Amino acid sequence: MINWRALLHVLSFIVIIVSLFMTAPIVVGAIYREWDSVISFSLTAVSSLTFFGFVFHKTRSSGRFSFTTRDGFLLVSLSWIIVSAVGSVPFVITGDIPSYTEAYFETMSGFTTTGASILTAIEELPYAMLFWRSLTHWLGGMGIVVLVVAVMPLIGIGGMPLIQAESPGPKVDKIVPKVRETAKILWGIYIGLSALETVLLLFGGMNLFDALTHTFGTMATGGFSPKGVSVGFYPSPYIQIVITIFMVLAGVNFGLYFTLLRGDLKTLRKNTELRVYLVIFFGSTLLVMVNLLTSGFYEGAGKSLLLASFQTASILTTTGYATADFDLWPSFSKAVLFVLMFIGGSSGSTGGGIKVVRIVTFFKLASNEMKYLLNPRGVHTMRMNGEAIRKDMVYTVTGFIFLYTGLLLLITLAVAASGIDLLSSFSTALVTLGNIGPGFGKVGPTQNYHFMAPWIHWLLSLSMMIGRLEVYTVLIILTPRFWKK
Amino acid sequence: MINWRALLHVLSFIVIIVSLFMTAPIVVGAIYREWDSVISFSLTAVSSLTFFGFVFHKTRSSGRFSFTTRDGFLLVSLSWIIVSAVGSVPFVITGDIPSYTEAYFETMSGFTTTGASILTAIEELPYAMLFWRSLTHWLGGMGIVVLVVAVMPLIGIGGMPLIQAESPGPKVDKIVPKVRETAKILWGIYIGLSALETVLLLFGGMNLFDALTHTFGTMATGGFSPKGVSVGFYPSPYIQIVITIFMVLAGVNFGLYFTLLRGDLKTLRKNTELRVYLVIFFGSTLLVMVNLLTSGFYEGAGKSLLLASFQTASILTTTGYATADFDLWPSFSKAVLFVLMFIGGSSGSTGGGIKVVRIVTFFKLASNEMKYLLNPRGVHTMRMNGEAIRKDMVYTVTGFIFLYTGLLLLITLAVAASGIDLLSSFSTALVTLGNIGPGFGKVGPTQNYHFMAPWIHWLLSLSMMIGRLEVYTVLIILTPRFWKK
Repeated sequence: MINWRALLHVLSFIVIIVSLFMTAPIVVGAIYREWDSVISFSLTAVSSLTFFGFVFHKTRSSGRFSFTTRDGFLLVSLSWIIVSAVGSVPFVITGDIPSYTEAYFETMSGFTTTGASILTAIEELPYAMLFWRSLTHWLGGMGIVVLVVAVMPLIGIGGMPLIQAESPGPKVDKIVPKVRETAKILWGIYIGLSALETVLLLFGGMNLFDALTHTFGTMATGGFSPKGVSVGFYPSPYIQIVITIFMVLAGVNFGLYFTLLRGDLKTLRKNTELRVYLVIFFGSTLLVMVNLLTSGFYEGAGKSLLLASFQTASILTTTGYATADFDLWPSFSKAVLFVLMFIGGSSGSTGGGIKVVRIVTFFKLASNEMKYLLNPRGVHTMRMNGEAIRKDMVYTVTGFIFLYTGLLLLITLAVAASGIDLLSSFSTALVTLGNIGPGFGKVGPTQNYHFMAPWIHWLLSLSMMIGRLEVYTVLIILTPRFWKK
Repeated sequence: MINWRALLHVLSFIVIIVSLFMTAPIVVGAIYREWDSVISFSLTAVSSLTFFGFVFHKTRSSGRFSFTTRDGFLLVSLSWIIVSAVGSVPFVITGDIPSYTEAYFETMSGFTTTGASILTAIEELPYAMLFWRSLTHWLGGMGIVVLVVAVMPLIGIGGMPLIQAESPGPKVDKIVPKVRETAKILWGIYIGLSALETVLLLFGGMNLFDALTHTFGTMATGGFSPKGVSVGFYPSPYIQIVITIFMVLAGVNFGLYFTLLRGDLKTLRKNTELRVYLVIFFGSTLLVMVNLLTSGFYEGAGKSLLLASFQTASILTTTGYATADFDLWPSFSKAVLFVLMFIGGSSGSTGGGIKVVRIVTFFKLASNEMKYLLNPRGVHTMRMNGEAIRKDMVYTVTGFIFLYTGLLLLITLAVAASGIDLLSSFSTALVTLGNIGPGFGKVGPTQNYHFMAPWIHWLLSLSMMIGRLEVYTVLIILTPRFWKK
């Protein structure tokens, strides 16, 4: 039985928290004297706080809340749907995005850290709207539910299924025994790194507004920029390098920063996923740089390195910022980025996609199979981070990758059904499910998603949510078995 | 230790058998008075028979031959490499394909039943050459090594690793206890179906030459046609329907025909792979037909059904024949074919690709994982053909799919490195590794592979061989571990 009372209680609390964050765009709007926006956000926040405050009040309970895995899937999926529904209202009220469908798409794209936009003229939006748009990235990056677990005392040990349903990666490690402390530490590290990036961007000459919004997009591996040409707006190599470094940092398992803070360098060095992630990043950067240089696309190794490392980091970590229109790059560089679109960030990072750890697991399994074929009677163990990989983990990863690939092809079919060419359709599926944002062709880095049919916008909103919540969470509540008994 | 003596003995026997098959193009050449071709094939055959006859003689042994799995991988890989090397010589001698690289590509494409061609003007080739080209399909379809196991009395029970290394599918069922009998039955069914198709095509008004060559291409799921516009040359719906039906038949597990011959309908009906395979075929045909109709691409439902079913069967079974330039079709139809390129025929058929049984295994695993997520303490069994799927089979399938996908992306990278656009590069990888033949863009059904750089031709020859031999066979001999001790 689903514990509807507890579920509604926490759900309304989640929406309340997100509504309270609307204070930020209200302040920004007041500073820039955008009174339409201020009214719009105030109206939305007050209505939402009244309604969900009422629900919260009505569903109170004397004891602590505990959730089953099943409750977790449902609560997390519902909360992402509702939070996006509420978060998209201000865009419609001011008319900055007149269509609710498009506003929903933009907001879901924000919370899921995808960064796919339907906006055709970004700079025409009020600062308050742009700030909110970037803030949705930041909230969704580390996870709204994780945040709520950290701040809501009523959720004790029972919060683990919630974190598991929302967090990236096949397996969530509790970095400290208590769930709430884990959530607090993760958010603490996230805030710390965000503060650091903001300061570094201010040093580079950005104003506070740009520094904050770009930090939100970076640390959440989101990709929304308040500039129409994305980070390419800033010619400063310093700024581009800072953002590159922080994109790469955001794609690392945040648990490892805690390990680092405790001075445990041994665990850090033994981490297979981190090593492979860095090898992929540096290797692809090198390949793209050499290709750009030899094809004479840019002048000088420095410029090629700068642009190659930025775009590589942006796609691998599923951020989606751009300093160049990589859709115009030579085929080989495009193919490298295409391959990176199948990988994604690390587990426990804010990055999306399949995740490096799953690729590593798959690789180990394949090489193990070859060992068995040569020596069927031998005992061959797969190891990760110096420990044996458990069989049930292999199964979970395999199931994930099948569902991911199946969805990829289904979404391609659906997008193609609206008449969009094959490469654009396939890359739309790749970059929404992988929470990347820009792809190739009609969804290239200088394009936007405005031209698509409304039903495609809804489908892609679902695709982004499925991707952000790691496939199982959403798909499982769509199975009849979930609702049995 | 690799048993080099036995390996060389059987290897030379394999080349001898293939060389003897050159009698066929010699006869065809004599009929059509193509004396250049007759001389070319005679020269090649005599040289090959002399050399490999000598090797065969020198490596004789008193006892029977037995092979380990390791020997099987090496022998099968080597035999495919050498058979293609010998089979491509006649093209170069007559100058019909002046470049040895291109001749090798064409021959490997033939034996692997890929059907990708470098020819720019197919009809200008002598009949003898065209016949040989199609005959390589037919020999490679059911398997050269399987044929040799069937006819070489010296290989007894030890032939199983050879069949396993060459046959499609994650698991080879011995349909009768004796390996040699199994090989004989498979080839018998293959010959029977081929004879039937030839007769049916003759009824449709094809001449014997066209009927035979098209039968070879159909039953082997190859795709070489002696006509430049492929099967589209024949406007007769009867001929197109016959070829469609036989393509679908060739994509079925040949072991099931034996089951059928024994009157065991129960086993047939319980076969999961067959059911899914047919559902995919009819489902995709319907989708494509409706799309072609509603987009007004062709006039009339009959014509749309005819073309949809043909192209669907051709791509799903990895044949590669065409009656229409599907690269010009509406996006959705192209996307359906694109998805089919990831599937392929059934295990134990002559079709290539990932194979339906692997997709089914993956799907069952994923749905099983969802059951575990909902009920972690439950016992959930995966079933196929009414029996539980063994865990080691799941691992083998998973490893296969990882290697397949990894190679797909690596080959995409390599092809893109030669400057070919991303969609064409990706579909080149898909259609060579999957032994399909035509793809999208620069390798569309009205295009050919002539324009590519020689190193890409060699790479794609390897890709076709890796695909035909089901990835593990070739990759494993490239690992250092294979050569240890």
